[in-house]
Amino acid sequence: MKNYNISLIKGDGIGVEIINEAVKVLDAVAKKCNFNLEYKEYLMGGVAIDKIGHPLPKETVDGVLKSHACLFGAIGGEKWDNLPRHLRPESGLLKFREELGVFANLRPAIVYDELTNASTLKPEIIKGCDIMVVRELIGGIYFGEPKQNDGQKAFNTMVYTKEEIQRIGKTAFELAMKRDKRLCSVDKSNVLEVSQLWRSTMIELSKEYPEVKLSHMYVDNAAMQLVRNPKQFDVIVTGNIFGDILSDTASMVVGSIGLLPSASTGNKTSVYEPIHGSAPDIAGLGIANPIATIESAAMMLKYSLNEEEASNIIQEAIKDVLKDGYRTKDLASFDAKEVLSTSQMGDIIVEYI
Amino acid sequence: MKNYNISLIKGDGIGVEIINEAVKVLDAVAKKCNFNLEYKEYLMGGVAIDKIGHPLPKETVDGVLKSHACLFGAIGGEKWDNLPRHLRPESGLLKFREELGVFANLRPAIVYDELTNASTLKPEIIKGCDIMVVRELIGGIYFGEPKQNDGQKAFNTMVYTKEEIQRIGKTAFELAMKRDKRLCSVDKSNVLEVSQLWRSTMIELSKEYPEVKLSHMYVDNAAMQLVRNPKQFDVIVTGNIFGDILSDTASMVVGSIGLLPSASTGNKTSVYEPIHGSAPDIAGLGIANPIATIESAAMMLKYSLNEEEASNIIQEAIKDVLKDGYRTKDLASFDAKEVLSTSQMGDIIVEYI
Ligand SMILES: CC(C)[C@H](C(=O)O)[C@@H](O)C(=O)O
Ligand SMILES: CC(C)[C@H](C(=O)O)[C@@H](O)C(=O)O
Repeated sequence: MKNYNISLIKGDGIGVEIINEAVKVLDAVAKKCNFNLEYKEYLMGGVAIDKIGHPLPKETVDGVLKSHACLFGAIGGEKWDNLPRHLRPESGLLKFREELGVFANLRPAIVYDELTNASTLKPEIIKGCDIMVVRELIGGIYFGEPKQNDGQKAFNTMVYTKEEIQRIGKTAFELAMKRDKRLCSVDKSNVLEVSQLWRSTMIELSKEYPEVKLSHMYVDNAAMQLVRNPKQFDVIVTGNIFGDILSDTASMVVGSIGLLPSASTGNKTSVYEPIHGSAPDIAGLGIANPIATIESAAMMLKYSLNEEEASNIIQEAIKDVLKDGYRTKDLASFDAKEVLSTSQMGDIIVEYI
Repeated sequence: MKNYNISLIKGDGIGVEIINEAVKVLDAVAKKCNFNLEYKEYLMGGVAIDKIGHPLPKETVDGVLKSHACLFGAIGGEKWDNLPRHLRPESGLLKFREELGVFANLRPAIVYDELTNASTLKPEIIKGCDIMVVRELIGGIYFGEPKQNDGQKAFNTMVYTKEEIQRIGKTAFELAMKRDKRLCSVDKSNVLEVSQLWRSTMIELSKEYPEVKLSHMYVDNAAMQLVRNPKQFDVIVTGNIFGDILSDTASMVVGSIGLLPSASTGNKTSVYEPIHGSAPDIAGLGIANPIATIESAAMMLKYSLNEEEASNIIQEAIKDVLKDGYRTKDLASFDAKEVLSTSQMGDIIVEYI
């Protein structure tokens, strides 16, 4: 029987609850598909600050690097917002991404037929929408040097090398090949030098993928087009900060951020996590929606463990559960037949599996 | 009788047609309110490239600086997109903003009751929405040095000084004082040093405006919130690139970009222009919507010439024309009683005045 080591980072707020449900579902599908999952928990974020005074313990990075894949809950909360910068949960997160080398952040934004009403956009605008946003995650202005804030003047550097652009570009082209073969590269090359290199590199790279139709869009227009006509997109590829903004815009197209997973991948261990945050305000109440995390677990099975069948089983179960009207509280007003707690939602998905 | 010198930059594409209608309306209201407008036309953009080989002639800057205000159509088009960078229309535009010192770009996004259907967002989400986006326009990553693209590595610098932030901050706080007294400052201070200075400066400045409720939002969240619940915003203030993205997102909330004006203001002459582009594909067909430009002219009367009554008269006329079902082609599917050409739309607004 195949055996996989999974590192778990539950983190803060609702992180604990949603990871527990994902584990429940993973175990059920593993049993059904005849493989074995072994979990190890690691600290990160606020809980790590509280316990050891630092948001990213070395053992966490080492442990995750040794595992086949990492399932991540959510970190952060007001409690730790006033710490010195290098001790804040966000600093731990950025360092974590860097150490793991997860240069590609994949955020699918898929609209479930049952939940076309959960978006603030009109149903006819979003119905059938299926976008994959590919965001570069360990470069650009997030990590660029030099940077400074001396109280009178402050700056950051938005920087990319050709290799970095090629690397994320390849990921995006490969993904497009498995989908509708349309890739939209987003930049601001009418103003920024760094975007000019981005665009010319994408154009050069596109010669290796003659089947993929590459287009380009300025970031301001892309933000508009995501609201105006999201169905025009298949795969979007862009840099770190533009991707941060556009992937959140894309999630609003879907509306129900409690459903949206993500994967961060590179050449080492990949990290799978819901796109929503740690929601400290509802932590411990048993009302958090675990589906985004369970979807993330499904992505993990597919992309990191090559257990595509198991992945599909989870996704089908989620679809059916939603179709049959089971909702957590966040989606209670959208055709709910029965409103479930966090753990009841995990249970019912297990049942459908 | 008061006399004002207005510089006109018609520019490219539909620029000529829409400015002509705005002038028609301005003349009508000037007559009614007893002041006089004198116009001088200047070249910029593609038309300037074609005539004199450069997108921004020196006489244009000099002429605009000598005028009381500048009314601007639109520039650019594919025809000039393959010129060397410094000769492209965009380069002229950025240089123009810099030379005029127009550090504040004001973009109101107001939803007309008659056109709540023109947005892709649900009517109940946007009805009554009235947002003012204040974008810093001559700093940040658009102008930051150093910058480079050597073909292997490229970078830009996102930089702000405390003075620059205070200057745009004051504009935003003053505007908030005249509105609902709520100001949301958008940054990415959980990651960027330049945003940390932005935020601390806004907080410091807020002490001078105790009546204004200042809040802060990360740019990714702001992009989401504009789609999720735009009515929560009164005034938004942000830097150049974030403002570029968010003001376009805000315009999609309204939906009908053919209606949206903007003002770019500093310590010298201000520039008023529609937010839409030059739309070369429909240039000369007489179907462009001139209302955004006429709204811009109304803003000019109010902010630069202090002719508030005249400004209100134009805005009332536009409201009534829309209420009575007159539409240009772009809005023909939204409760149109009669579809008008560009110049007929100008005529009917004059009639209502
Ligand atoms: C918390 C923050 C540093 C992070 C980012 O900006 O990358 C978050 O917004 C995200 O998208 O994962
Ligand atoms: C054309 C371009 C340089 C410009 C900008 O990015 O400022 C435009 O998008 C705008 O918003 O006025």
